[in-house]
Amino acid sequence: MKPMGPIPAGFAGSNGELLIGGCTASDLAREGTPVFAYDRAMLAARVASLREAMPGRLAMHYAMKANPHPALLRYMAELVDGFDIASGGELALALEAGMDADRISFAGPGKDDGEIEAAIRTGVTLNTESAAEIRRALAIGESLGTVPRLAIRVNPSFDIKGSGMKMGGGAKPFGIDAALVPDLAREIVASGAVWRGFHIYAGSQALDAEAVIATQAATLALAAELAEAAGVDVPHCNLGGGFGIPYFPSDTPLDLTAVGAALGDALASMPDRLADTQFAIELGRYLVGEAGVYLTRVLDVKESHGEIFVVTDGGLHHQLAASGNFGTVVRRNYPVAVANRFGEPAINQEQTVVGRLCTPLDILANKVTLPEIRVGDLVAVFCAGAYGASASPAAFLGHGPARELLV
Amino acid sequence: MKPMGPIPAGFAGSNGELLIGGCTASDLAREGTPVFAYDRAMLAARVASLREAMPGRLAMHYAMKANPHPALLRYMAELVDGFDIASGGELALALEAGMDADRISFAGPGKDDGEIEAAIRTGVTLNTESAAEIRRALAIGESLGTVPRLAIRVNPSFDIKGSGMKMGGGAKPFGIDAALVPDLAREIVASGAVWRGFHIYAGSQALDAEAVIATQAATLALAAELAEAAGVDVPHCNLGGGFGIPYFPSDTPLDLTAVGAALGDALASMPDRLADTQFAIELGRYLVGEAGVYLTRVLDVKESHGEIFVVTDGGLHHQLAASGNFGTVVRRNYPVAVANRFGEPAINQEQTVVGRLCTPLDILANKVTLPEIRVGDLVAVFCAGAYGASASPAAFLGHGPARELLV
Repeated sequence: MKPMGPIPAGFAGSNGELLIGGCTASDLAREGTPVFAYDRAMLAARVASLREAMPGRLAMHYAMKANPHPALLRYMAELVDGFDIASGGELALALEAGMDADRISFAGPGKDDGEIEAAIRTGVTLNTESAAEIRRALAIGESLGTVPRLAIRVNPSFDIKGSGMKMGGGAKPFGIDAALVPDLAREIVASGAVWRGFHIYAGSQALDAEAVIATQAATLALAAELAEAAGVDVPHCNLGGGFGIPYFPSDTPLDLTAVGAALGDALASMPDRLADTQFAIELGRYLVGEAGVYLTRVLDVKESHGEIFVVTDGGLHHQLAASGNFGTVVRRNYPVAVANRFGEPAINQEQTVVGRLCTPLDILANKVTLPEIRVGDLVAVFCAGAYGASASPAAFLGHGPARELLV
Repeated sequence: MKPMGPIPAGFAGSNGELLIGGCTASDLAREGTPVFAYDRAMLAARVASLREAMPGRLAMHYAMKANPHPALLRYMAELVDGFDIASGGELALALEAGMDADRISFAGPGKDDGEIEAAIRTGVTLNTESAAEIRRALAIGESLGTVPRLAIRVNPSFDIKGSGMKMGGGAKPFGIDAALVPDLAREIVASGAVWRGFHIYAGSQALDAEAVIATQAATLALAAELAEAAGVDVPHCNLGGGFGIPYFPSDTPLDLTAVGAALGDALASMPDRLADTQFAIELGRYLVGEAGVYLTRVLDVKESHGEIFVVTDGGLHHQLAASGNFGTVVRRNYPVAVANRFGEPAINQEQTVVGRLCTPLDILANKVTLPEIRVGDLVAVFCAGAYGASASPAAFLGHGPARELLV
């Protein structure tokens, strides 16, 4: 038997049916599986809990790379203070979702001229990632006759300890090394562009509050140091994100209260250069990850050499990360349940839940303890709200994309 | 410095330009990058070399999951004797490409009723993967009034030694355990369905000829044993594939001549039950992998803490496997070149080529030795003909899919 991660708080069953957004799994699956269902109330509750824990001065941004489903974006646009985007495609979706351009910032190490032009035309802030990109943006702004809004993405010399993904610390393709930032900040100010400040992103998927607190303190200190060295004010400072969610057996939720209290203290004692700075945190996975469930239908249950394999109509073409093939070295089980037998006792027989793809990589839950699964049952994979549908190879093997629903 | 895999044989430069299908990389990139270019002549040469090395009795199937690009499929349909498909979506593409239904076989552990119905209606052979699937197919055939064509996919008790991906050996979701096959083969024959024989697939991406030869011998022995135990003839026997291509520094090409000679000897001494059997091998990656090149344009070249990062307009959203995030534990470098400085000497400075995505996973070539790369240059990633465009999360971060060209 291999353990599974914890089912996110807030999911409950009714008469043996998993409820998502007040709907039964069977109802959600009726018009076809696989389907991603995103729970609107859980999204709102997550943002509300953040607003309660975090200092009032802090703006909340949604990093839409986590989940760009249009209905979810429209909903998130009402809940958060800004969107962080990573491409021209995301820019178009963000605007369609009703987010104001002046609350959108665009980071990414490989922006092409068309993307920079679109950002300048629409008034989106560019988090510039190199000296060359700053100069490209200034030149494009000049040729358009439009003043660009420019921030600098800083490559900090630290990262979040124990974070799932390091985005700073040492040599990195992201941002501009801190040593080069003061000169470039002055160059932007002198150019007549709208100077927007700093974007400092040190890592993601951190569950350790102490590590997040230390990183935020270091980020604030770096912003102050850079502002002082450059002799410029900092209208806006994106402190990055990095708040993780529990996926795996030993994972425990981030202590948001501790993070918020420490950040409140830190913001209360900012140096003059940052006295009027608007601070923001940028969260993707933390806002939407736990609100999503991936529902698949069981097509076959078979025994091979004494082991039970449950074959679903889903797979890694929709949920690559859950299969253990995206950014993880050792495969571990996401939380999984039988959605139409929710709460039923597990049987004393390991079951392995696989996707329908003809590859041994396509495992959704390896040797887990669940109720007996039968053909026609619904298997739910939790923590599917972030880096699921849009971060999986939907065309692989020709089954096509999953449905997505905001409920 | 980290090494790269070998550039596949057959690629050459002309006046400093990599040629693909007789076109320069710069010409291929002119209408937009990133672009996958598949070299028609290399596809034909690969099939020809197989026909020369393999016994004449052996049919060549293309496993289209490796690359379902429509133009490539149409070309492959002329070159090979059959297509192996893995979904209803692939069925539609195979027929559109002009492949005859009676030369198509459909394997996959999670076929839904709609897919089984489509296969029966069109006359495609179903490689059945469980007793339950056989009974579903018979029932659907009866309700349609159409006789299904059924083979059995066997889960062999062995796999290819040293293969990149094990598809048999012990408990697996694929196929039917050998012990159950004789009874089910008789059941199919007795049902009045068209009995098509066996599909025995033991693994993929093997470079060791001895291992492939041993597996093919074991596969033939298993087919003979099952036919004898069932007391049925075997009209068709798909021996699987598994021929690998070199991706990484220490990889060497499979010795095709040795494999073909051994298979010829084995086929010459088949027992009576298999005397008239049509044997086939099923290859995907081996047929198309080395014929494809992924061309990206350099958007930025930046230094961070003394290291050089080359930021391209491509990335893992098109070439997930090259980034090391699909089925590999340790990331190694695919072969990469500067396509518009092909053959130029390398500089004495490591360069890391990354994609444009805002994630540290998006590495195309880590700390490699190449000519000096400048903005606007074209970086070519080789071995991109299989499991590239269709096996990558094209929607991730909103940059959209790459162009694909057969040249």
